[in-house]
Amino acid sequence: MLTKENISNWFKGLQNEICSQLEEADGSGKFISDHWERPGGGGGVSNVITDGQIIEKGGVNFSAVWGQAPAPTLKMLGIAEGEHQFFATGVSIVIHPLNPMVPIIHMNVRYFEMSNGIWWFGGGIDLTPHYVIEDDAISFHQNLKSVCDQHHATYYPEFKKWADDYFFIKHRDETRGVGGIFFDNLKADHNFTKESRFEFVKNVGSAFAPLYSEFMKKNHSMSFSENEKNWQYLRRGRYVEFNLVWDRGTKFGLETDGRTESILMSLPPQANWVYNFKTKPGSTEAKTLSFLKKGIDWV
Amino acid sequence: MLTKENISNWFKGLQNEICSQLEEADGSGKFISDHWERPGGGGGVSNVITDGQIIEKGGVNFSAVWGQAPAPTLKMLGIAEGEHQFFATGVSIVIHPLNPMVPIIHMNVRYFEMSNGIWWFGGGIDLTPHYVIEDDAISFHQNLKSVCDQHHATYYPEFKKWADDYFFIKHRDETRGVGGIFFDNLKADHNFTKESRFEFVKNVGSAFAPLYSEFMKKNHSMSFSENEKNWQYLRRGRYVEFNLVWDRGTKFGLETDGRTESILMSLPPQANWVYNFKTKPGSTEAKTLSFLKKGIDWV
Repeated sequence: MLTKENISNWFKGLQNEICSQLEEADGSGKFISDHWERPGGGGGVSNVITDGQIIEKGGVNFSAVWGQAPAPTLKMLGIAEGEHQFFATGVSIVIHPLNPMVPIIHMNVRYFEMSNGIWWFGGGIDLTPHYVIEDDAISFHQNLKSVCDQHHATYYPEFKKWADDYFFIKHRDETRGVGGIFFDNLKADHNFTKESRFEFVKNVGSAFAPLYSEFMKKNHSMSFSENEKNWQYLRRGRYVEFNLVWDRGTKFGLETDGRTESILMSLPPQANWVYNFKTKPGSTEAKTLSFLKKGIDWV
Repeated sequence: MLTKENISNWFKGLQNEICSQLEEADGSGKFISDHWERPGGGGGVSNVITDGQIIEKGGVNFSAVWGQAPAPTLKMLGIAEGEHQFFATGVSIVIHPLNPMVPIIHMNVRYFEMSNGIWWFGGGIDLTPHYVIEDDAISFHQNLKSVCDQHHATYYPEFKKWADDYFFIKHRDETRGVGGIFFDNLKADHNFTKESRFEFVKNVGSAFAPLYSEFMKKNHSMSFSENEKNWQYLRRGRYVEFNLVWDRGTKFGLETDGRTESILMSLPPQANWVYNFKTKPGSTEAKTLSFLKKGIDWV
């Protein structure tokens, strides 16, 4: 029987494995671990890397928390107020690289269970290049598609569309990057068991480090000037806007007294804002913006 | 009779007056004007100053917009959905100075009217020092108190408390700065006419430029090192967090398709995030944090 402890332990192991692989790919940066406890039950380990050779700031967070389900959660689930216990565990990652030619990446895998027996998996990976390199976006999506295709033919098209819709900065009419996959509420039904859902989530989690290490190795020695660096700071500003205004996970965490430093680990080391900045027609920046829309078929 | 046009015209004049006074106080920076139209009705003028001698980035925004009241507004007002016209006008300001010893400031005055005859004034001023200088905080509050006291003895204590509660970064358990005054829903009643409410709002608007010019002149030549500059970037990060996560005006604007560049004019030129940053005990940074709480009586 697959228990919440099995799932949580696997996630904890994934965190360690990913941190080792990222340290190896970076070649110099080391993760520092912060163990924290949640007053209402459970806790987590936040692993943070700063000033690596390739990674400027990154966080790989594990948590397993439980306790009295907060009112907003119950409301979201359509459950009447009252005594309900929840259990939530997951791994959440955001990496901000130094070189603007290396993309920002985000990955999350999570499991949620209520004392009334309801449970589900969720997660996703999405890529936010400061400069869209088409071959990178294609190989990224092909990799995700092949992970998805091992489990169900509907997974990639469905979860790719979900990512387009989720990682969308509505007030800018831009997607956050070139998307990826996003999924939530994965339960058992006539096609899937709890075990088969978990196998998929495990494969997504395990795909992350090899995929991103590849981009780190390939792009970190590409040349850039002050112009590209300034653009990177502006794109990071958009990342901040998405996370603080639209990301449901961030909002939920901040509104329900989650551990602020672990939630906001996703914010970049530096972000800039320039009033009404316009890209030059025909520039690589303008080309990047042209790719920041929903519905692009990268495979 | 005090019409919405009278009020709007006065606000437009205030914008010009404030920009002149800030240019004079800065001595080198000049405002650039952007006129914009709102597809649903009305528009505004965004005045932006960058790279002044004292002001690094600042915006003084005027708008007068009208049209079909959006569903979230009706919901907020407890009005059943349907055909309702609204009119909203105001001036909104945020100034980010270069020198960390000069505080960030925000001011807003606004008027709202519905086609069913409901109207009210709102607004506020609050000060966000990167380093709290007690004498500055005291003189700031004394000035606001004397503006308030000319109109009603309850204004200052009531609006000061409202500012403490409003300009609060819940997920950090910190106030944004040393507060100021905040007010909303100022209507006519047995104590106040529309004219007397407007007189108060005018006095608040007119108090802004002399008050802030004083801080610009007094503090802009104070010395600072890289350490103070880094702290300024972190405090600006908190400013971003407040505006994007908690500020109702910003959220409302972004969710109802307001003009993004005018709404986000409030964001700093540069903000930094350092994971789990801790101030040194006894440092001026630690002292500043000790002042970022509700309920401090500055007068």
